[in-house]
Order: sequence, then structure tokens, then C-alpha cells
Amino acid sequence: MGKPLILVTNDDGITAPGLRTLIKIMNQIGDVVVVAPDSPQSGMGHAITISDTLHVKKENIDNGPQTEYSISGTPADCVKFAVRQILRKKPDLCVSGINHGANSSINVIYSGTMSAAVEAGIEGIKSIGFSLLDYSWDANFEYCEEYVKKICNMVLENHDEKLILNVNFPSGIKKFKGIKICRQAKGYWKDNYDKRISPLGKDYYWLTGNFINQEENDETDEWALKNGYVSIVPVTYDMTCYDQLSKIRNWKIN
Amino acid sequence: MGKPLILVTNDDGITAPGLRTLIKIMNQIGDVVVVAPDSPQSGMGHAITISDTLHVKKENIDNGPQTEYSISGTPADCVKFAVRQILRKKPDLCVSGINHGANSSINVIYSGTMSAAVEAGIEGIKSIGFSLLDYSWDANFEYCEEYVKKICNMVLENHDEKLILNVNFPSGIKKFKGIKICRQAKGYWKDNYDKRISPLGKDYYWLTGNFINQEENDETDEWALKNGYVSIVPVTYDMTCYDQLSKIRNWKIN
Repeated sequence: MGKPLILVTNDDGITAPGLRTLIKIMNQIGDVVVVAPDSPQSGMGHAITISDTLHVKKENIDNGPQTEYSISGTPADCVKFAVRQILRKKPDLCVSGINHGANSSINVIYSGTMSAAVEAGIEGIKSIGFSLLDYSWDANFEYCEEYVKKICNMVLENHDEKLILNVNFPSGIKKFKGIKICRQAKGYWKDNYDKRISPLGKDYYWLTGNFINQEENDETDEWALKNGYVSIVPVTYDMTCYDQLSKIRNWKIN
Repeated sequence: MGKPLILVTNDDGITAPGLRTLIKIMNQIGDVVVVAPDSPQSGMGHAITISDTLHVKKENIDNGPQTEYSISGTPADCVKFAVRQILRKKPDLCVSGINHGANSSINVIYSGTMSAAVEAGIEGIKSIGFSLLDYSWDANFEYCEEYVKKICNMVLENHDEKLILNVNFPSGIKKFKGIKICRQAKGYWKDNYDKRISPLGKDYYWLTGNFINQEENDETDEWALKNGYVSIVPVTYDMTCYDQLSKIRNWKIN
């Protein structure tokens, strides 16, 4: 058996240090093809480009052994385009990240990083989104490397056909306490809008806000991260609420 | 008790006939505030605007009793902005649509219509996304009206605090067979990229494709729609895959 074929993408754009770190690690594991956005795509959720055109460019950024392309689209576009137009066979693994910033709890739903992983999952490709809880461009990804490698190898060895993992790393910690397999914590963003006035006298707004964690349960990703663990949440794209399904089946609706 | 406060939004933009129909129906049920994108946002998934500014405009489109605003953002932005900046109290219901096109099966994950409903759900507001399986701008929403009203009234009367419904209507049918409470069908888009050359000689691509339904089970939304029923899928934003969770907890990972 040859080396695994690994598709690498992200949402911070093809030059982001988190992506460059991920490529470096993946080059130690398999044959790497990078298909990443040509510009930052944070907060893009599972957006796809259907009302606009896509432009694709072959890239050579660090002279590494990987093949690279940038795309004028979203992370989900990158995975779709890679699968249909670039890769000659289905990759063994798709990794997305390492994101500059958290994708734990409800952030999974706003996350471009995770949308790429989920899109790969829809395509039947095992996938992992990696995120570090540090939004800065010069975040230190050094302590993640050993864990990224370990988790990728475990997923490659796993016999389940479908597996989408949301992996988050705590920041400001040199030695993680280990890995916790978690569920998504209940939480939301308490948004604020910063209202400003343009030079032409028109109002405009910036979205800001604080994340509110709604539970302290030790089975959640938020708990794991707060307590120094790497969190892994297995993710599904079946958004059916099965609890509600059984309840509302009793509605006298017809 | 006064009339319910209803927030109305969509992803096709504030002038879309599907939205105008939904506003007309909601005016019969409650006090209506419309906060909708100023331009089409199809395929935006759960995108939010964090790297750009938002512009907001008071609108008066059809002289109806509703209050209306357009926003230069995504459907999820519209709900966030409405809740934080426009509404003085939490609405009793948020409705999104009626979308010009299907949001059944995997489309829920790409859907701007449903992202607005899900965002309302995260905010603790009961919500419903409505979609008609007809992509055309002059789609006929007439046969949906009775059902939209009925479903909204059922949700308003329901005592569950949380409820997010994905409602789809078959097209080309004058009399629906009734309503089916369903789960999301397994399916995906078999994408094609239409490669073209610009007047300047540069390659570019359009995303096209066909939806592939992967199951014929009569518990799914695809089955219901194919058989002339209105489909209702209750939706969650907890993306944890609980089946996998119990499996991978056995991994010897630490």
C-alpha cells in the first residue's frame, strides 16, 4: 500500500501560518494536495459559491513536496472543486486548519474550517478540522503538532467509513493534559454591534460579541478546553433533531 | 395576550416574491417585523459577516402594516441584527422564506433560508424555514399559504421552548396530500464545474450539479416531497454525532 492521499484546506487562506503548519505535518504522513481559499473566509459557515464564478491558481509557496492550488471561493468550494476537478482519486483523508481561533461549541456552525471538513464527510471522505484557541496570526502551533499527527494516524487506521472530527487545542499551554472525546457544549454568541459613521455621514455596523458557554458539564468540548485537554467532537451533517421528531409526530396536523 | 411578534427573513432578498407572500400571511397572524438581505444570499450556509461592515436601511415596499429593514449581510446576520438592534422584545416566532427552491435533505446545510431559522433557534426563538421546490422567480406560492398559516399556528401554540422546523413544499401540485413529519434524507450534490474562458483569456468555473438522493425510505423528507406531501423536519444545531461519540470513546488515545 502506498502513502495515503491527503487533501489539505482551511478558512484563513492559503498563506495562513496554521495551514502551513498543517501542510508540514501532513507531508510526514502522506502525499499532500492543498486546495485552499485565496483570501480569508472566517465565519463563512457552509457557504458555497453558486451566484459567482470561481478562479483557480496553481501555487508554489514554500517549495515543499505538496501540490497547491488557491481558489477564489469558500472552504466548502475548495473541497468540492478538489474532489471533482483536481484529485484523480478519492483522498484517504481531508484535514482543514489549523484554524486561528476556536471552533468549539456553537462555533462549529459558523466555521469555515469545519464546513470544509463536513463537505469532505458528505463526499464520503474521512475528515478532521483542527483549531487552536488563539485568533492571532502569529499563534504558536508548535505544541499541536504531535497531537495532529497522532489524531490523523488514528483516523487513517480507523475502519469506519464515515468520520468527521472537530478538534480544538487550548492556547497558552505548553503541555496538554491529553485528549477528551466530547460532545458539543451548549453555547451562543452575545453579539454587540459597534455603530460607526462613514466619512460620507452614513451609519454602518461591525459585528462583535462574546461567547457565552451555557453549561459546565465535563462531557463537553468547552470543559475539556478549559481544563487543558485537546477536545475531539465527532460531527454529523444530519441536522434532524431526533428528540423533537418523536414528539412532533404526535401533532394532529392533517 | 396581544398578537404574537413575528420576525420574517429569507435568503433570496427583500424583494423576492416568496418573502412577500410570507409577509402577507404573517400579517394575518401577528405583528410583523421584516429584516432581510438587500441582495440574494442563496447557498450562504450559516455565514456571518465578521470581516466586513453591515449597512441597514429602513424599507417600505408594499405599504403593508409590517415594519421592514434591509441589511447588506447574510440571513444569519439579519436574525442577529434584528434581535440585538431592532426588536425591543424577543419575537414569538421567526419565519424564513418562502425560499425559491428546495431545502430538503443535505440542502439544509447549504441553505441561507435555514441558517436564519437555525440562528433564531440558537437565540431561543421558535423558528420555521419554508421552501418551495421551484427555483423560478415567478414560482406559484398560492397553494402553500394555507399550510404556512397552519404550521405557524401549531408552532405558536406548542409549549416546547425550542423548535426549529424545515418545511418544504412539493412543486407543480395544486392539492398537497397532507403533511409528513420526517427526518433528513441522505443525499449529496454530484457537482459539475462548467469551465469557461473570460474575454481576457483566463479560465473560470461555474458550479453546477445534480442532487443525488441516496435512500427511498418513507420516513425521509425526499420521500414525502416525491409523494406529494409537505415535509417537516425538526432541526438541531447540535452537530455532535452521538453514534460515533460512543464508538470513539473506546479509542486508546491518551
